[in-house]
Amino acid sequence: MLEGFFNPKAVAIVGASTHEGKIGHILVKNMLKHGYKGKVFPINPKADEILGLKAYPSLREVNEPIDLAVVAVRPLDVLDVIKQCGERGTRSVIVISAGFKEASSEGARLEQELKRIAKNFGIRILGPNCVGLIDTASKVNASFALGMPEEGNIAFFSQSGAMCIAVLDWALGQKIGFSKFISLGNMADISEIDMLIALGEDKNTRVILGYLEGVNDGRTFMQVAEEVSRKKPIILIKSGTTSAGAKAVSSHTGSLAGSEVAYQAAFKQSGIIRARTITELFNYAIAFASQPLPKGPRVAILTNSGGPGIVAADACEDSYLQLARISSQTVEKLRSFLPPMASFYNPIDIVGDAHVDRYKKALDILMADKDIDATLVLLTPTATIEVDETAKTIVEYAKNKKKPILCSFMGDVQVEKGIRLLKRHGVPNYLCPEDAVSVLEKMWQREHWLSSPRKEYPQISADRSRVRYLLEMAKREEHFHLTEDRAKEIFKAYGFVLPKTKLARTKEEAAAAARSIGFPVAMKVVSPDITHKTDVGGVILDLKSVKEVKEAFTEIMLSVKSKVPKAAIYGISVQEMIQDAKETIIGFTHDPQFGPVIMFGLGGIYVEILKDVTFRIAPISKQEAIEMIREVKSYPLLRGIRGEPAADINALISGLLSLAQLALDFPEIIEAEINPFLVRSDQNGAVAVDARLTIRRE
Amino acid sequence: MLEGFFNPKAVAIVGASTHEGKIGHILVKNMLKHGYKGKVFPINPKADEILGLKAYPSLREVNEPIDLAVVAVRPLDVLDVIKQCGERGTRSVIVISAGFKEASSEGARLEQELKRIAKNFGIRILGPNCVGLIDTASKVNASFALGMPEEGNIAFFSQSGAMCIAVLDWALGQKIGFSKFISLGNMADISEIDMLIALGEDKNTRVILGYLEGVNDGRTFMQVAEEVSRKKPIILIKSGTTSAGAKAVSSHTGSLAGSEVAYQAAFKQSGIIRARTITELFNYAIAFASQPLPKGPRVAILTNSGGPGIVAADACEDSYLQLARISSQTVEKLRSFLPPMASFYNPIDIVGDAHVDRYKKALDILMADKDIDATLVLLTPTATIEVDETAKTIVEYAKNKKKPILCSFMGDVQVEKGIRLLKRHGVPNYLCPEDAVSVLEKMWQREHWLSSPRKEYPQISADRSRVRYLLEMAKREEHFHLTEDRAKEIFKAYGFVLPKTKLARTKEEAAAAARSIGFPVAMKVVSPDITHKTDVGGVILDLKSVKEVKEAFTEIMLSVKSKVPKAAIYGISVQEMIQDAKETIIGFTHDPQFGPVIMFGLGGIYVEILKDVTFRIAPISKQEAIEMIREVKSYPLLRGIRGEPAADINALISGLLSLAQLALDFPEIIEAEINPFLVRSDQNGAVAVDARLTIRRE
Repeated sequence: MLEGFFNPKAVAIVGASTHEGKIGHILVKNMLKHGYKGKVFPINPKADEILGLKAYPSLREVNEPIDLAVVAVRPLDVLDVIKQCGERGTRSVIVISAGFKEASSEGARLEQELKRIAKNFGIRILGPNCVGLIDTASKVNASFALGMPEEGNIAFFSQSGAMCIAVLDWALGQKIGFSKFISLGNMADISEIDMLIALGEDKNTRVILGYLEGVNDGRTFMQVAEEVSRKKPIILIKSGTTSAGAKAVSSHTGSLAGSEVAYQAAFKQSGIIRARTITELFNYAIAFASQPLPKGPRVAILTNSGGPGIVAADACEDSYLQLARISSQTVEKLRSFLPPMASFYNPIDIVGDAHVDRYKKALDILMADKDIDATLVLLTPTATIEVDETAKTIVEYAKNKKKPILCSFMGDVQVEKGIRLLKRHGVPNYLCPEDAVSVLEKMWQREHWLSSPRKEYPQISADRSRVRYLLEMAKREEHFHLTEDRAKEIFKAYGFVLPKTKLARTKEEAAAAARSIGFPVAMKVVSPDITHKTDVGGVILDLKSVKEVKEAFTEIMLSVKSKVPKAAIYGISVQEMIQDAKETIIGFTHDPQFGPVIMFGLGGIYVEILKDVTFRIAPISKQEAIEMIREVKSYPLLRGIRGEPAADINALISGLLSLAQLALDFPEIIEAEINPFLVRSDQNGAVAVDARLTIRRE
Repeated sequence: MLEGFFNPKAVAIVGASTHEGKIGHILVKNMLKHGYKGKVFPINPKADEILGLKAYPSLREVNEPIDLAVVAVRPLDVLDVIKQCGERGTRSVIVISAGFKEASSEGARLEQELKRIAKNFGIRILGPNCVGLIDTASKVNASFALGMPEEGNIAFFSQSGAMCIAVLDWALGQKIGFSKFISLGNMADISEIDMLIALGEDKNTRVILGYLEGVNDGRTFMQVAEEVSRKKPIILIKSGTTSAGAKAVSSHTGSLAGSEVAYQAAFKQSGIIRARTITELFNYAIAFASQPLPKGPRVAILTNSGGPGIVAADACEDSYLQLARISSQTVEKLRSFLPPMASFYNPIDIVGDAHVDRYKKALDILMADKDIDATLVLLTPTATIEVDETAKTIVEYAKNKKKPILCSFMGDVQVEKGIRLLKRHGVPNYLCPEDAVSVLEKMWQREHWLSSPRKEYPQISADRSRVRYLLEMAKREEHFHLTEDRAKEIFKAYGFVLPKTKLARTKEEAAAAARSIGFPVAMKVVSPDITHKTDVGGVILDLKSVKEVKEAFTEIMLSVKSKVPKAAIYGISVQEMIQDAKETIIGFTHDPQFGPVIMFGLGGIYVEILKDVTFRIAPISKQEAIEMIREVKSYPLLRGIRGEPAADINALISGLLSLAQLALDFPEIIEAEINPFLVRSDQNGAVAVDARLTIRRE
């Protein structure tokens, strides 16, 4: 995919310049000086020759095929260039020029026009307002960035040109190799989604890195990301996560920033690894690019000094990893050649006077041990250490690629050469053991994610036509906040159990209803005009006798009429009180990028005060529903503490799945919540006691 | 303090060696080649001359004063050297030699002997088993580390020799300047506490860094650290925090690792800044060493590109810092010279084609703005940027030292020279804007800590002789887990209010007791042999009538006698039930290093399931008690939600203070807990309903 961009046989630079330092000059220079073997055509009506190449007044004058055009002319002139490309059959265009959506409303209009023209001709556009792209395999450097990275198997794309420039400059200094380097700019056409697909297919790319400010089509993004994640790791920085950040995003690229919660859920669900900083991004990347994934969480730490060993052990314990238990056989083997003051348990401390042979013998044993999934080698530059020899030895063991080896050679001057050697042979090294551990943790999490079964989305049967009818009614009546009754009927159509309920218009009807339902009962006013019933004295709970029911009827009526005199009152609903059940809340809101975001939490203060909730983007699989339930800190309350029976987790799972299905089936529902959703013990089901549902005003 | 170590006029190297590469050789070389102006006496019975210096067979043959002896002989020979030092009046000795406490039980005995001899002579010892020390002002390099750091105002001490070596080597590469560099080794004498005092007084040291595995005297450590923290920042890495780490510590230096919770509280209470990694340690250090503290949390971000600006804004919002609101006056000033596509709000984006003049004008405005407490300058190496000029400009503004300026020049190759210039002039630069933000956050937290009033520990009046008597009784009876009654009496002596209670030996006594207390009541078995009363059916709550009380009496007696037939039963306690109160738990445990650790949390699941608790080391000030209460996530429940009245916070504060006092007054109490400690609303006090107390077996 996007072959015309990454592997063009001929490239035109439209807006090529004779002036050193100008972008149009740098573009030509970059195409020439990094080993590109194809043809380069500078286009400039005022020049005969640029950097030794014949210059053409326009694309029309080039009588040879051009696969890729790189455009750096004034924004107003861009449209004409696109047309020329279309007419001559050039189907890949990078628009470097700025002055579009990011600049002004005229710019935005111009960008729309650009999109339209490109689409008509079947042209793919990268940009506008971008730095360009680099492909180290084909030696294409169609960017105005300074420098060309070494060849490697890491790809990087960015929604921020500045990040591209900064990361490239940093990577040049760090000598990190890249397969491709892409600045997406305004994404008039090619987006982060296209890039994920292209990089997923690219045989030169083993790890995909990206800097993301937002996505437009969250659903497709997730689907593509999950597909690609199964083949190679995607590691992203997502900025614009907080409200302040979000403000800056919208004034920056005009893209809408989705809420942090939705992105967190989306990344988790599609296997994307999130990095918080550029340092973290590359800490992860270099390991994923060169090392196999660990098959389990058990880590052995091999060190020539105590302090760093402790630091690494601490970090392991704080992570999802485990310190491998060293078996007595392995201890015996280690004891056979290590001095008595060494430590044979994890961390394995071969002590300060260790030469390379101790590292070698220990690695021999650890790499063969089936109870160890990954090895972390620490080295402090003591007086006796042979840094380079040790590095060479580690490289040998890393070659078989069966288990990951990560290193922390600590220091700088003394260990520099050894570290260079490790890096050159694909063994990642980190200044701090903690960083190495956090990288290993991500690798183990990826292995775990890859080995979990593909998600299955269960079929949810529901009376959809009933829901359609109810929503239609609500829209006609302009009741965008549905009445409780109607909301509950909708949930009922999706298989939710409601409490036994009867509508009473008089005291006597209420008493009769209560008798037939069975005591205790709850009573709630029914009115399309009242959303928060409790606030107006419209709810009384736990009524235990006919007398109490009748009194409650009068009390509710008086209170509601005095507080909301204009509300239409349909009557009072008499409801079964659900006893001995756990209070939970399930609901969803609509994220502009990702669609329905499903929430789960335990009711009352757990949600309100402790914010002990969890989210997923719909659709959710059964496994994801289970994860949601287990993820909240208050989960032990559902499992049952102090001899209590466990809550009916299956009913909760069904509830979450049905809710997600409802959200997907009827996108006009922008918010819905069942609160409380009372979950009984064991296999006794769950009851939707109260419900709210809001539809979009059209 | 420790002048003999840091500024000796003459130094002897005992165990000096003629062999290149040997520690005894490196020690002499290090003393000679880094500019030390004092005298150096190599001691070696077999050599005439070492590195051009006359060698002496023993210390006795040196007829000149020696301030400092550096000892690197076999462990068995060390004692004799110490004696020689004592006899000739050398009062400062660094013992490099290993083979003491860390190696074996004989080594430990040797170390005890070493301590005893040194103490007799009034000799201070650094080590044994250490790398030595470096003082860049006096040019003393009494270590076998390779290399000498540049002069600077950062001091580093370490309980791990390996960390010393690694950090020194790294700092050499990074060209970080140091005042002093100290390896503490086994701390037979000089400990981290002595070092904090010495570095606190040292005029060349502005920032104190350390790597800590554990402290022995937690109380003194905290007192000293707090005193020193008021003068200069102390930034520490503490390892051995998790159970796995802790195991490694005890097998490593033999020091006892305190619990993570106690260290967290101790660091917080004494103003110590904690770093998680070496990178973080120096990220903080270079800023504290050169920049003033911000007077408030309001940060302005100045950037030439959007992406990094967003990243920095996100990080600010996630921290205790704030994005400064840019006033309309400031916006007007910015607008007067910035292009229209710039952003005048925070982050202030002077856009990609910015030259140095835009940075200069913007800094002019931001540095003068009273609504801005700190400035973060971001730079992406765009084509037009003047990196070095911009760095020079920033350095000029940083010179006035009124507000901190931190930078993130992003990249490597293009920005290298500029970053070097910044660093040389004390302007910290970070690869990632997030790192700069997290450093600024620590600076603001320190300013906040410094400006908070000194702690005052209130006088708690208590009937201490009564408590002494009760504890004495318990010890005599060997009831190390006190009976509930006795525990409660102890709390009562410290001003705690107990529920009205009467002991009943018969059904009839129970009924009479309940009538006089008022219904409802609780009933609990009283037995010195039963700690968990509920488990044996020894507790029944909420008894509302004489009939219920009598039945409960029988039920409890039957249950307890059948489940614990051998338990001595004193009777059944009839207790007032406290209604409409919030359930809290207060208690303390005894940390081996820090003494009593006070705990607070809301009762029931908040403590048990959600682990929503907080800790402080006793003594605690009133302000610390308030912080504890506010720190738990469930605090809103105490403040009152949904129109409930607030709980009596003052009663809770008093309770915490009294509890801390009890813990300090009677160190033999190793564990105590009031659970539940029921806090009534407003000014209605709190009641200690149930209490446990354990004393040390002697």
